Amino acid sequence: MSNQYYDYQLTLDKLIRKAALIYPDVEVVHAPPGGPIIRSNYAKEWDRIQRLGSALEELGVSPGEPGKFGSRIAVLDWNTIRHFELYYGVPMYGAVLHTVNVLLAPEDIIYTLLQAQDEVLFINEDFISLARIVTSLVKSIKKVVIMSDELEHEEVSFDGVKVYWYEDLIRDARPYNFPELSENTVATMMFTSGTTGRPKGTYFTHRQLVLHAMSVALSLSAPPINANIYDVAMPLVPMFHVHAWGLPYIATLVGIKQVYPGRFDWGWVLKLIKDEGVTITNGVPTILFNLLYHPDSPKYDLRGLKFIVGGSALPRGLLEEASRRGIHVVQGFGLTETAPVILLTMEKANMRNWPEDRKRELVLSAGLPIPLVDIRVVDGQGRDVPRDGKTMGELVVRAPWITREYLNDPEKTRNAWRDGWFHTDDIAVWDSEGYVWIMDRAKDVIKSGGEWISSTRLEDLISTHPAVYEVAVIGVPHPKWGERPVAIVVPKPGQKVTEEEIRNYLMGLVNEGKMPKWWIPDKVVIVESELPKTSTGKVDKKVLRERFQITLE
Amino acid sequence: MSNQYYDYQLTLDKLIRKAALIYPDVEVVHAPPGGPIIRSNYAKEWDRIQRLGSALEELGVSPGEPGKFGSRIAVLDWNTIRHFELYYGVPMYGAVLHTVNVLLAPEDIIYTLLQAQDEVLFINEDFISLARIVTSLVKSIKKVVIMSDELEHEEVSFDGVKVYWYEDLIRDARPYNFPELSENTVATMMFTSGTTGRPKGTYFTHRQLVLHAMSVALSLSAPPINANIYDVAMPLVPMFHVHAWGLPYIATLVGIKQVYPGRFDWGWVLKLIKDEGVTITNGVPTILFNLLYHPDSPKYDLRGLKFIVGGSALPRGLLEEASRRGIHVVQGFGLTETAPVILLTMEKANMRNWPEDRKRELVLSAGLPIPLVDIRVVDGQGRDVPRDGKTMGELVVRAPWITREYLNDPEKTRNAWRDGWFHTDDIAVWDSEGYVWIMDRAKDVIKSGGEWISSTRLEDLISTHPAVYEVAVIGVPHPKWGERPVAIVVPKPGQKVTEEEIRNYLMGLVNEGKMPKWWIPDKVVIVESELPKTSTGKVDKKVLRERFQITLE
Repeated sequence: MSNQYYDYQLTLDKLIRKAALIYPDVEVVHAPPGGPIIRSNYAKEWDRIQRLGSALEELGVSPGEPGKFGSRIAVLDWNTIRHFELYYGVPMYGAVLHTVNVLLAPEDIIYTLLQAQDEVLFINEDFISLARIVTSLVKSIKKVVIMSDELEHEEVSFDGVKVYWYEDLIRDARPYNFPELSENTVATMMFTSGTTGRPKGTYFTHRQLVLHAMSVALSLSAPPINANIYDVAMPLVPMFHVHAWGLPYIATLVGIKQVYPGRFDWGWVLKLIKDEGVTITNGVPTILFNLLYHPDSPKYDLRGLKFIVGGSALPRGLLEEASRRGIHVVQGFGLTETAPVILLTMEKANMRNWPEDRKRELVLSAGLPIPLVDIRVVDGQGRDVPRDGKTMGELVVRAPWITREYLNDPEKTRNAWRDGWFHTDDIAVWDSEGYVWIMDRAKDVIKSGGEWISSTRLEDLISTHPAVYEVAVIGVPHPKWGERPVAIVVPKPGQKVTEEEIRNYLMGLVNEGKMPKWWIPDKVVIVESELPKTSTGKVDKKVLRERFQITLE
Repeated sequence: MSNQYYDYQLTLDKLIRKAALIYPDVEVVHAPPGGPIIRSNYAKEWDRIQRLGSALEELGVSPGEPGKFGSRIAVLDWNTIRHFELYYGVPMYGAVLHTVNVLLAPEDIIYTLLQAQDEVLFINEDFISLARIVTSLVKSIKKVVIMSDELEHEEVSFDGVKVYWYEDLIRDARPYNFPELSENTVATMMFTSGTTGRPKGTYFTHRQLVLHAMSVALSLSAPPINANIYDVAMPLVPMFHVHAWGLPYIATLVGIKQVYPGRFDWGWVLKLIKDEGVTITNGVPTILFNLLYHPDSPKYDLRGLKFIVGGSALPRGLLEEASRRGIHVVQGFGLTETAPVILLTMEKANMRNWPEDRKRELVLSAGLPIPLVDIRVVDGQGRDVPRDGKTMGELVVRAPWITREYLNDPEKTRNAWRDGWFHTDDIAVWDSEGYVWIMDRAKDVIKSGGEWISSTRLEDLISTHPAVYEVAVIGVPHPKWGERPVAIVVPKPGQKVTEEEIRNYLMGLVNEGKMPKWWIPDKVVIVESELPKTSTGKVDKKVLRERFQITLE
């Protein structure tokens, strides 16, 4: 029952070919800090992507098919227009785009390249030194392609590896005639950031990326984002993180202008928002924080900016400040393994007459499942917990865009994919309106006397104290209770706060019925320096636990 | 490379299950003319659909699989809540929902049922007499299920056919545990309206319906419709026409309130729009006309209503009147064979600063290809015609939701599916902005001296004359030119117009550069009665050609 009409494939070429045909003059802008700015558009990008196809052929790259990976092509780059071209050209050729997190330790980067067995390495010229180390250790890499804004370049050589320059390859190439691939051809590969243990490999097919883009695009068209064809997108999620949450695909799908800001310079990003009329962007809470509290920020009118936040819990104070500045915020939730988006805090039909405050409260949740995503929240025996917004369980998910497995790790794979569901390892509650509230990573839940305390929720409560800049709560072994919470608090610059004040403040919240008394931390440690972060900007609790070897009794 | 996580299927249960889980209290309203109104919601509908599953099992219905049709279930019904339940329950069971156009001649209805070999017939009680005729001739039908709003009912018997009552079946049934189907299971079957020859059978899989709903929903979120989660949908396209253009699926996908108006009574429909807060609906131009010119219409404030028009060309005067009433109109284009939507007149990113008039002009086109749809406009040799908005060619299409074939008609199938593309048999021009303008059905193009005249375009021009109510242009054999156009004109009630006046008016348009002089019809026939229509409300040119046996010389 298969024919070429009936089984028209969900492949990435459908997005960029269409954009070139219907939205040829809509801009795709390459705007690295300080410039020079390159103003391309969908017609020109389609031409460059076709030439990239021929360049890949010249480099000896092999296409794959369902069940067989094409050549893995590693990329070390910021958010640039060439990275955008690789997002399309490599998968459309049938090869696998391996986006590499440049913020990982070199040791971990090398580990991921060894796992992926990449054949070609595309690098931004900022990473030439790193690439030398990498190629000396990862013997599968035979070719390096350097991406630079400079048309003139010095000779660069690598031991045992051929060096090419991206712009030379593109300039000399003919437009490639991309094949009609099966939608089940693997398109991308990337590794989890690995707050626990080594990075784990995940991969995604064309079909998965197209369906993810469709579902997220549809969800973003709902309030509070009301995404629109008149929006201008600038991905601030690094493109080496899970498809920049799909924004380069979504923006192409709907045919809107895109702006690529290069490496991340927040003063420059603020200027681009104004100069290029950017209206929609994304990032972890830290990125939103950077935009709001940059010294230049007060100079800019950010009203109407649409911000998709995710990656770690959104602090209430940050949401309130963003709202004060007129920014529309939606929170998304997902994992590298889920491509990433599975939940989004879009509004529902029954909320039309809700006051704005009540609607905004839901933006602090992880959201509703987006179209085509099924979820459950289950206890240790796999039974659904009550949807009461209180009872904690593990979030499990089914969707057309979950990675098939962890690369080279059948044991971890068996552990995560059980009983027909992918297990997220996140502890959540589900409320009666359908919004999921992530309470903790399973490993960060504090198990005190048989009850669970959500470290994230407790952090959220402590962060409402006006003098608190940052807070992390960790579980510390306790002889009687098994574990008890300890809070590490960083006061705002120029302000002071004591353990006593924090404990009194929390007792006030207890009296207001906002938390149980037994959640009050056994210890509050005040520190002056910023908390240690992972490469994705999340507080690194592993390091914190090592640093604060606290004994409770 | 197949596993249950990776290959999560695009099946219709994903839409209604999710709606019941996340939008349980959002209303689904059954509102037949004069009432009584039944207020259901997604949670209750999910319960009734599960019971319908058990009823289908009790009726001995067989599920299908890819490559093998399940039992065909024919439905004769208006736009009711039970029809909505069948839209989900029958395909989710694995059977094939055959929606029957009740406006076809009984002979054609019987023809389609013989072609489909339906096993069970679900009928609105309005169609008991028709069903008696049908079942006496279509021997594959063993069971009839009568759908009625009355809970008490008299005994009804059919010769040789068992009779059931829908509400009795549902009341007595347990919730059915629907199977996890392959997305390539056939879900629906329907027949083209057959303006030429016998109706032709088409069919669609779960995957096709889900992808169609996603793509149309995303397109409708763009201006000028700006569809939103706060919309309230009422399908006015009869549900026996190509999935009511997908609206019952789209509304469920995004979780908005739905209203089903029963058989079509335009005064009642206007009242429902007001009483139920309906904001989005759809239909052929005649339906829009009925809403605007109904005697009760002036009593109603239609500002903000969103109307998706299609099925035949939208007259300019109708669009202008709708705009005056504050209705937002978008035109869609498609065929029964295309599920149906492939084009929609959504706006594009580069039109932000266009004046409203210029944007509205594009609503008169057939639109842009929606996401995942590829099109070409080709000449007789299969070569792309220039995208100049002038050169005519045939519109050909590829999309994930084209029917696989014409049922039992390999010759017609081979003729339509050629060179990798589905041939629409529609003559179009494509403009530089990407909008397609349908000029004619291939058979209605008038070939005059080797050049093509679009009868539709000529009708559109003649209809701008202030005294013209309706117009049709047909090609009439001509000894010298091969064919020449003849116009049949119906003046507005109470107004008069002569052939002379129409010809002078057109000469004025020629002088303004709006049409070539050789397009002026050789004859203009003024008639007082309405033009004959097909069951889908289109002017029946076959009948017109028979009625006006004109000889030109």
